[in-house]
Amino acid sequence: MKPRLGIVLGDPCGIGPELIARVLSESELRAMADVLIVGDSWLLEEGARVAGVACPARVVHSVAEVAFDDDDTPLLLESDTIAREQVRVGEPLEAGGHAVLAALDRALELERDGHIDAIMFAPLNKQAMAKTGYGFGDELHWFAHRLGHNGPIGEFNVLDSLWTSRVTSHVALKDVCALITEEAIVSAVEFIDASLKAAGRAQPRISVAALNPHAGDGGLFGREEIDIIAPAVETARSRGISVDGPWPADTVFLRGRDGACDAIVTMYHDQGQIAMKLMGFDKGVTVQGGLPVPIATPAHGTAYDIAGKGIANPEAARRAFRLACDMARARRESAHA
Amino acid sequence: MKPRLGIVLGDPCGIGPELIARVLSESELRAMADVLIVGDSWLLEEGARVAGVACPARVVHSVAEVAFDDDDTPLLLESDTIAREQVRVGEPLEAGGHAVLAALDRALELERDGHIDAIMFAPLNKQAMAKTGYGFGDELHWFAHRLGHNGPIGEFNVLDSLWTSRVTSHVALKDVCALITEEAIVSAVEFIDASLKAAGRAQPRISVAALNPHAGDGGLFGREEIDIIAPAVETARSRGISVDGPWPADTVFLRGRDGACDAIVTMYHDQGQIAMKLMGFDKGVTVQGGLPVPIATPAHGTAYDIAGKGIANPEAARRAFRLACDMARARRESAHA
Repeated sequence: MKPRLGIVLGDPCGIGPELIARVLSESELRAMADVLIVGDSWLLEEGARVAGVACPARVVHSVAEVAFDDDDTPLLLESDTIAREQVRVGEPLEAGGHAVLAALDRALELERDGHIDAIMFAPLNKQAMAKTGYGFGDELHWFAHRLGHNGPIGEFNVLDSLWTSRVTSHVALKDVCALITEEAIVSAVEFIDASLKAAGRAQPRISVAALNPHAGDGGLFGREEIDIIAPAVETARSRGISVDGPWPADTVFLRGRDGACDAIVTMYHDQGQIAMKLMGFDKGVTVQGGLPVPIATPAHGTAYDIAGKGIANPEAARRAFRLACDMARARRESAHA
Repeated sequence: MKPRLGIVLGDPCGIGPELIARVLSESELRAMADVLIVGDSWLLEEGARVAGVACPARVVHSVAEVAFDDDDTPLLLESDTIAREQVRVGEPLEAGGHAVLAALDRALELERDGHIDAIMFAPLNKQAMAKTGYGFGDELHWFAHRLGHNGPIGEFNVLDSLWTSRVTSHVALKDVCALITEEAIVSAVEFIDASLKAAGRAQPRISVAALNPHAGDGGLFGREEIDIIAPAVETARSRGISVDGPWPADTVFLRGRDGACDAIVTMYHDQGQIAMKLMGFDKGVTVQGGLPVPIATPAHGTAYDIAGKGIANPEAARRAFRLACDMARARRESAHA
């Protein structure tokens, strides 16, 4: 059986609708899943017009009508999240924030009620979301709240088949070192290992980055590798995880690029982001990690400056679609195992 | 008139001789300069044999014999730095360290006496050099000492036409922030600006990296961008330098790769090295910056593990050769201006 994928068009004023129309215009992608779009049919049509593609979709008006045909035609569950006259392309609007939250909420309900296995959403805009006063710093924490999930959560950046996460994120560089603890590293390794396994990767190989130049060069430039990171790697390995490191930060991404590992745990934000952006700014996917529902989205944003022009690059959206399908399939298989 | 380039074969036990033979086997490269190799003729022949190339060279035994023909044939000034039976391919030997230091010393003399305009050397090995007890941490400080140079010095990493330097280098990450001062940044910007100009780049465009994630996001994750880096950029700009920033570290290298700047000044080691190694581990060139003599070398090392096998990638050596030619030409032009 095909995985069932819920799709949300993203912020209606950004490039989301045109990206989804373009992705679903590709028969090879449509064939990968039973697709249920949660949103406004006029908005998908407008996206198809902007993208210059034909995007087949059969509109349904209630969950009771949801029944997938054999011909790979996506369904669209009419959701009335925003009126055409409310949209101003290229602007972060409160109405846009409300629209995407309403669609995501509906998608979460559909998942809860067993109609879909995973969710892929097109870019949303943090500014537009903030204007609604929804009360969360980002969508990941909102998802966790809506799902009543209290376990660990964290975003993963995925490029091709390489996953990355970080032990510290949006903190000043001067505060990073104090946050690099054995416990934090072991948790990060266990978290990405479990998430990769949930996504269907049997025994993921995880590499851990060092903190200091040349991995400290035997303690010459910093002792964290000796005192903290190597012991953390050893602890994680003793728990059955396939993990190595600490590797110098300027070579660990060559390992990742060359396929020597499936995931890299970095120590701080720019360590991973410098590499991932150079390796493919336009192709990255973000996984909302830790949640009980597989959720993926392109790593890029709403690109308001080019929204409505039909020139947005759909590659990251394609990849988010495929990854969400993979995660949905793995979920079904483990449920039926 | 062609620039006159002195070439040193590098550590005799590493991949240097085969790389130089391969580079000089290419007529297009030979045509770029009057080449004077300073080293042992048997070692160049051995390099040519290993590389499987014909490397034309006319051996001379004294400076008095140095006279370049019109046919682009390199000269080799026989220097007897090491005997064939002393070499053990793939090992860091004291004799190897002595050999490369002797050849470099001779090249510096030739430059002093006006026979060459710039020097390109094949990889040397820090361990082999250390075994000689030469008393310097690296070749750059040795060059400065030999040249009686007391001004600022520093290595630049060059990839394609992009130069990079860093405000801090081999220090623990926890010590980086205390070293990020306005004065240190302004000095680094002025230094790379002057070095690019000396290499013939009229008005180099320099971009400065931020220290914190998202360049501190308006002070949310660190204030160094606001309090230190932006004022330093402003100071350097007020002195007539074409400089911008601070740019988020995860996007500044996209600027560099796309040609939006000629040089990037980073705040710490891995910030630049993660990017440069991903952008072309095998193609980088190191410039010994600040010295009165233009000196360039491939960024990679002696690669003892593959020395003598004829499989070493010559691309970085080609680029070091071309860059040394460019710098030599700029030097001659400025001397005659």
